[in-house]
Order: sequence, then structure tokens, then C-alpha cells
Amino acid sequence: MKYGIALFPSKKLQDLVNSYRKRYDPHYALVSPHVTLKSTFDASEEEIKQVAKELRHTAKTAKPLDLEIKKVSSFSPVNNVIYLKVEPTDEMQELHDRLHTGALSSEPEYAFVPHITLGQNLSDDEHSDVLGSIKMLDIHHKEVIDRFHLLYQLDNGSWTVYETFLLGKESE
Amino acid sequence: MKYGIALFPSKKLQDLVNSYRKRYDPHYALVSPHVTLKSTFDASEEEIKQVAKELRHTAKTAKPLDLEIKKVSSFSPVNNVIYLKVEPTDEMQELHDRLHTGALSSEPEYAFVPHITLGQNLSDDEHSDVLGSIKMLDIHHKEVIDRFHLLYQLDNGSWTVYETFLLGKESE
Repeated sequence: MKYGIALFPSKKLQDLVNSYRKRYDPHYALVSPHVTLKSTFDASEEEIKQVAKELRHTAKTAKPLDLEIKKVSSFSPVNNVIYLKVEPTDEMQELHDRLHTGALSSEPEYAFVPHITLGQNLSDDEHSDVLGSIKMLDIHHKEVIDRFHLLYQLDNGSWTVYETFLLGKESE
Repeated sequence: MKYGIALFPSKKLQDLVNSYRKRYDPHYALVSPHVTLKSTFDASEEEIKQVAKELRHTAKTAKPLDLEIKKVSSFSPVNNVIYLKVEPTDEMQELHDRLHTGALSSEPEYAFVPHITLGQNLSDDEHSDVLGSIKMLDIHHKEVIDRFHLLYQLDNGSWTVYETFLLGKESE
């Protein structure tokens, strides 16, 4: 089964992001707006129980994260992906790194650039048009994220949450 | 903000259900296949923290649930909704009842008929055609559900998981 780990920002930010994704992101209907912490990986049902156990420990010993957005950016020319850049913090990098060690050991495909996708799979022309117009928006946003989620993918490509992990909290 | 509480069945069952929902359920892209335990309710961000706390307690003192499917049914003529009937159990009824007391006190709109929707908003003709053909399938399925989820709704109608609660488990 395919799994991934992500943060969901507040409803307010998700609604804003969806207003762009609706038009520019073919994954719009498959998953809510998110920051990917660990991209798709395979695990059996037995393995994922061990992973979840490790994630509970990771979450408990981590702290809530500041999520700050100051600008729109793009992965072009590597990929025509337009995104809200999430300002990197040591805490977020550390959480990312811990999600790539132990039972979750794997080499990240790219360096970690925390982001929330607004649009992808765009043609070169559409990419530069959309990026030009979105860049003119003055997007500033700051919030605290106190949880992350382990998700699995269904055959139709959509994602369902397997479990939520509260950052820095003993579950009561 | 609008919240709801649901169970997600296994990926295997979700994939099967989605093969029908894709054609017959306009909510297909908004949420993964599920059993609704508590339908949409309003809560503020402060209130939902209290609700989540109560749900943690509820989950810890409950037990994993048997989910058994023996047949396809319909809410017609009240609603043209075709669904997999989930065999009622005392444990599921009890969990449902506890999700309608305390901080979650509310009168359920209907008697609790646990089900997984396959199709809805169908015309009368389509409803009877589809029901006739699906009823011929011999669907038998049994699994154990060890968690439930509190979700919130975005402006576009889609649902994001707020928190997962493990049944009968001290989180470690």
C-alpha cells in the first residue's frame, strides 16, 4: 500500500489554496491542500503499524510548528509547479529528517523545500501566465500547526488519513 | 466550522465502493467512502478542542468494531440513496450514542442505520436500474475497524481529517 506524510494548514489557508488548485491542479480532488513531509512510500499493513508507533513517539517529542508564507514560487524549469513557499524553520527540517530515519529510513528524492502546491502539470505558457498573475498577489500568512497526518492512497489516486499525530502532546 | 465524525473501512472496501461512487455519487470527490457516525455539526475552534478531548476519552474506553456487510439496500422512497448496509452491532450503536451526548449532545436526524453510500441524488429511474443491478452482486465482507475520525469541511464541500481516534487504545 502507498503511504505519505503531510501537514494540513488551517481551513482558511486551504480554502484560499483551493481557489487556485480548482483551476490549476489536477490533484485538486484527490487530497486537501497540504505540505508534504514525506512523499509516497510503500509499506505492508504490518510495517505501517510499526511506522505509526514510531510516529507517535516522534510527535510526542516534537513541538508545534510555525508555518509562515511570504511568497509564491515555482519549481520551474525542473517542474511546472506553482506553490506557496513555506518559510523553512529548523523545527520543520528536523521533523522532516526524523521522518526519513529509523523505520522510515529513505533518501528524500529532493532537498526539502516545504511548500503548498497551487498548480501543477501546467503547460509552459500557462505556467508563466498563472505565475505572473499570482505573484502580484501579496500573500502573507502565519499560523501554528500542531499535528501531522499519515495518509494512504486509494486505487483512484485519492488519499485517506490513516492516523493523526499531535505534536508535543501526550494524548489524553 | 462544520465538522463530522466517520469510520473509514479498509482500502479494499473503499476501492470497491469507489468503483460505484465514481458513477453514482456526486460526493465522490469530496470524501473517501465512510460510515457516518455523526452527521454535520457546527463548532468553533475552541469548542472543537473540547470535543476532541472528549473523543479521546470516548475512544480509549471503547473497543474495536466489527464491520460486516451482507447486502446492498436503499433509503428509497425517503431518499434515493443506495448503500452497503453495515450489520448493526451493540458496540457500534453505543459508540454512535456516545457521540450524541456530553459536549456532542444533539438529537440524531434519523435513527442510526450504519451504511456506506454507493450512490445518491439519483433520478427515480436511475435509482431503480442501478439498485437492481447492484443487488445481484453477492457482496459479503467482514473486517475490524480500530479507529474513527473527526473531519471538517472546506468551502468547496470536501472534508479534511482533523484528528484520528484509536479505539480501545492508550496512545503510546
